[in-house]
Amino acid sequence: MAATIEALRREVLAAHLAIFERGLARFTFGNASAIDRERGVVIIKPSGVPYHALTPAKMVACNLDGTLASGSLRPSSDLPTHLVLYRAFAEIGGIVHTHSEAAVAWAQAGREIPCFGTTHADYFHGPVPVTEALTTTDVAGAYEANTGESIVRRFQGIDPLRVPAVLVRSHASFCWGPTVEQAVECAEVLEMVARMARDTIALNPEAEPIPAALLDRHFLRKHGKDAYYGQPER
Amino acid sequence: MAATIEALRREVLAAHLAIFERGLARFTFGNASAIDRERGVVIIKPSGVPYHALTPAKMVACNLDGTLASGSLRPSSDLPTHLVLYRAFAEIGGIVHTHSEAAVAWAQAGREIPCFGTTHADYFHGPVPVTEALTTTDVAGAYEANTGESIVRRFQGIDPLRVPAVLVRSHASFCWGPTVEQAVECAEVLEMVARMARDTIALNPEAEPIPAALLDRHFLRKHGKDAYYGQPER
Amino acid sequence: MAATIEALRREVLAAHLAIFERGLARFTFGNASAIDRERGVVIIKPSGVPYHALTPAKMVACNLDGTLASGSLRPSSDLPTHLVLYRAFAEIGGIVHTHSEAAVAWAQAGREIPCFGTTHADYFHGPVPVTEALTTTDVAGAYEANTGESIVRRFQGIDPLRVPAVLVRSHASFCWGPTVEQAVECAEVLEMVARMARDTIALNPEAEPIPAALLDRHFLRKHGKDAYYGQPER
Amino acid sequence: MAATIEALRREVLAAHLAIFERGLARFTFGNASAIDRERGVVIIKPSGVPYHALTPAKMVACNLDGTLASGSLRPSSDLPTHLVLYRAFAEIGGIVHTHSEAAVAWAQAGREIPCFGTTHADYFHGPVPVTEALTTTDVAGAYEANTGESIVRRFQGIDPLRVPAVLVRSHASFCWGPTVEQAVECAEVLEMVARMARDTIALNPEAEPIPAALLDRHFLRKHGKDAYYGQPER
Repeated sequence: MAATIEALRREVLAAHLAIFERGLARFTFGNASAIDRERGVVIIKPSGVPYHALTPAKMVACNLDGTLASGSLRPSSDLPTHLVLYRAFAEIGGIVHTHSEAAVAWAQAGREIPCFGTTHADYFHGPVPVTEALTTTDVAGAYEANTGESIVRRFQGIDPLRVPAVLVRSHASFCWGPTVEQAVECAEVLEMVARMARDTIALNPEAEPIPAALLDRHFLRKHGKDAYYGQPER
Repeated sequence: MAATIEALRREVLAAHLAIFERGLARFTFGNASAIDRERGVVIIKPSGVPYHALTPAKMVACNLDGTLASGSLRPSSDLPTHLVLYRAFAEIGGIVHTHSEAAVAWAQAGREIPCFGTTHADYFHGPVPVTEALTTTDVAGAYEANTGESIVRRFQGIDPLRVPAVLVRSHASFCWGPTVEQAVECAEVLEMVARMARDTIALNPEAEPIPAALLDRHFLRKHGKDAYYGQPER
Repeated sequence: MAATIEALRREVLAAHLAIFERGLARFTFGNASAIDRERGVVIIKPSGVPYHALTPAKMVACNLDGTLASGSLRPSSDLPTHLVLYRAFAEIGGIVHTHSEAAVAWAQAGREIPCFGTTHADYFHGPVPVTEALTTTDVAGAYEANTGESIVRRFQGIDPLRVPAVLVRSHASFCWGPTVEQAVECAEVLEMVARMARDTIALNPEAEPIPAALLDRHFLRKHGKDAYYGQPER
Repeated sequence: MAATIEALRREVLAAHLAIFERGLARFTFGNASAIDRERGVVIIKPSGVPYHALTPAKMVACNLDGTLASGSLRPSSDLPTHLVLYRAFAEIGGIVHTHSEAAVAWAQAGREIPCFGTTHADYFHGPVPVTEALTTTDVAGAYEANTGESIVRRFQGIDPLRVPAVLVRSHASFCWGPTVEQAVECAEVLEMVARMARDTIALNPEAEPIPAALLDRHFLRKHGKDAYYGQPER
């Protein structure tokens, strides 16, 4: 049993190193987590510790209600957001939060990212949504948990595995996936897609999202039972 | 005979490493191919394999009708696009497809890249065209081959060796050349030209393409029998 | 006593290397300083010396009136600006001046940077102000000192530790903090925030600053007595 | 005598490596030269040779009339432009031509770069001018020499050492200075200034150039007999 949690700690550490090395997070502006659904244990970054000082042992293990499962470091202040997402989105196994710059610009502009092309369609089956602004009461109260609730509200009617990212208004992005490694890839592609969409609009303010047929074709050639991208599983 | 195909495999591998190292492709977002016209054999990337895991032997060898010539890995899902181009453009020897970001922005905006300056004119004898959108039927059918057909239709009246690149609408670019190495160079210059043209328009929305005389002068000082750029061939 | 000044020289050297390595300054376009309040000694870069040629011993030590405390190299031409700030802002311990590009664009545009999101709110408790233009007389006179005075005037009613940066109109930024190391971090975040805000406006020219409640929440979760970000001090 | 020319060959080689390493030139898209005024000899890049294959010996030595002084490689096709500048601007010792991207965008937009701030004023005493378009006859004739003539015409009334750069319309920049090393620095700063000015206009389309007093103050604190930037000459 310890072995699995140990592996998860290493995966979460690798995710933090990846978001730093790929330019998605500076200082301590990002955090990643992963969940062991059987044990109900979430592994997450300790608050305020620089990436280069992280080790598997320093990762914080929490229960789904936010109580510490082991260790003594304080978890990321964004932990309550992660927990809300793990509770609401039963199929996800990892979450990555960064302040990557182009995604932040969309979040600050309060605009969802339209699906302008196949790069986007390969990863997100539709626009990347932006949450509603929190009320003053929500900000003054359990702010980080309320952030999570605003995401869950925004995803009513959206399958989180088909649209594995969100823009939190005036803040930044959260990305997720079956594993934390996939959430990291999603965060990197989101940033790329955010840059491309920004420049698309600069070149053509009336640019249209791609047709539904093309969106489906691209998303489904990579995902689901009829996928034909990559090598057959062995 | 094997030696030539072997050399082609190494060239195609080098092209993949180059598009990755020069920032034109992340993950598996790009593919390159080359053709041995005498043997009718096309060498292309295997689908979904990361660049750092590629070897010459893992490259897929296909016939011009898309049947496997050797090996067992599945070829890039974009193979049918490459094959249509090799059949239609008899003089080209290599093709590179990337999702490089500035070129994608133009493709997503549905705008051709005007020839605003001599950097562009040194490589492309006129604007870089954008294809028409595919019909729903085309998307639902042989999508990748139909993508190739849309490129060929767009090039009616254009010499593909004088304009060795295209923007596929809502998708990304395909570049080509006498060799796959030249196609890689073309892909890198296209991205540079796409960035410069984007910023030109931001500075002057009414910017005019360069005059025909200057376009000819620059293209022809590098290409054709009166070229005077570089060292004389020995 | 010498030990402390020696440590300060090394800190100021490290600050210069950091602004260079993080892409905030090229050539000799930036300078940093730190103050020993007890001794009234300011350590600052020598004028015109490239970063890679700096050593702790080459740093210039000055008194708060600008007279040389030791050494023979001429101090940075911006020294008088630093001195005005140290005299006016009693709590600051270090200053960093760079021409980082996005911040310069805002300074040249004559616009303050609105607080569009939580990245900004984590570091700056409100917009980053821009100074008024200097008069011709101010430019012709003690130009560098007058630059400092224009900053101090602009900060009437603003706590410099809550908004530890300014844009000098038509020039560039000055950042500060309790230590020069914190001023460097502030300079890097300012540049990031300047890029994000620039792109926010491009996506939404009517973008609104974040609500006061969210601004307070983010600034205060990192600063002051109720901060809950990071690990508890031991 | 050979020693001096040898030193010049090494300086010109270093200039080429610098423009490549600093991201100002890809492939063979830039060239640099230097002149020995006493001997009337210009050292310039051989045409079409990649930067990493250059050696001091491969540099081409020409007389001011364009005839080869030694060696057998063909000089850069832009040599005639350089020669016109050396003949017209008697005080310059080195020239650098690159297609650095932001400067190209201004050249393609047909706009001079206004002096929006002190970074610009430290290097260029006024806007960076853009040439008039060449006539069809000029393009069809001695194109590269005519490019040089268009620069010289544009500089009537401008001191080339006070404004050591130009944008050739629809093409790119030429920079110069007392030495080729200073011309390289000028080319790098021009690119930086071009980016900053582009973003300034995006943030404020009505942005004003800096006042004459501030322009003079900054240019003259670095240049001329009353300069007080840097260390006194020893």
